[in-house]
Amino acid sequence: MKVLWVFAHPEQRSLNGSLRDAGIRALETAGHEVRQSDLYAMSWKAVADGGDFADTEPGARLTYAASSFRAFKGGTQTPDVAGEQEKLMWADAVLIQFPLWWFSVPAILKGWLDRVLAAGWAYRVTDPANPKRSLRYGEGNLRGRRGMLIVTTGATAASLGPRGVAGDIDDLLFP
Amino acid sequence: MKVLWVFAHPEQRSLNGSLRDAGIRALETAGHEVRQSDLYAMSWKAVADGGDFADTEPGARLTYAASSFRAFKGGTQTPDVAGEQEKLMWADAVLIQFPLWWFSVPAILKGWLDRVLAAGWAYRVTDPANPKRSLRYGEGNLRGRRGMLIVTTGATAASLGPRGVAGDIDDLLFP
Repeated sequence: MKVLWVFAHPEQRSLNGSLRDAGIRALETAGHEVRQSDLYAMSWKAVADGGDFADTEPGARLTYAASSFRAFKGGTQTPDVAGEQEKLMWADAVLIQFPLWWFSVPAILKGWLDRVLAAGWAYRVTDPANPKRSLRYGEGNLRGRRGMLIVTTGATAASLGPRGVAGDIDDLLFP
Repeated sequence: MKVLWVFAHPEQRSLNGSLRDAGIRALETAGHEVRQSDLYAMSWKAVADGGDFADTEPGARLTYAASSFRAFKGGTQTPDVAGEQEKLMWADAVLIQFPLWWFSVPAILKGWLDRVLAAGWAYRVTDPANPKRSLRYGEGNLRGRRGMLIVTTGATAASLGPRGVAGDIDDLLFP
């Protein structure tokens, strides 16, 4: 199986880093092929802005989704975004590993989601049989792939339980 | 009332920008004092990393929360982070305005939460009466302040409703 491992932790020598190394080793030993997106090591650009689009005219009003759609269709996305899309299309399974910060993903990983999941590719994908209809979850370019999260937290299990003060982890991770 | 308006949209001439301008005007007309954190205009640093701490030794292992705690206690936080904390302490009410991107806040705003809500100030705040106990929600440095979200979406109301394909907006915005 082809596995993409997305890693969003600032320290390689952390528990997260060790888990990642052990996980990749185990997958490779079992004969799987693994590629990695180590977002901090890549200095991933987190902020979605006009700089993502080569055709942004100075002073022009930015509509991010429209520019994203145009860049994807026209093949003018930035190489970092196009590279991650290529990895996602290559993969049969995608693992996303991060520490839970303020009930969600670290900003660098949110910026990977914001920028890589481009219009025309991950959303605003039209149904070939009915161009007026957008494809929904389970129908788009990533259909059939497996996904898995590896999440570490600094809170106790109880505080993230069904009646925990921080909220139930299952609610926090939805969707 | 003193109001801090946090704005996380890349385009001033957007619907969001207009709503923000109208809102601030209305508040000021009603006699309230308003300060703003326009994250894109400020080129807010989204990614929480070792660069946030002056005392990070080259090659030293980074434990973000521990460094955050030390920097807050020692007064060595970066000026951008300390400045936002000062605004939050000044405010009676905090408005946070953003477009819903992938079920959550844009990365730049997540990075504001990750970095500004520092250890020792927003979490890991000990109870003066019992130093072994951490203060929880409603007990910390921001207690008594009002909060409000202004969220725009590109989806229909139905798709974000109780049985909507994108999930119920109330679940998405929890917490």
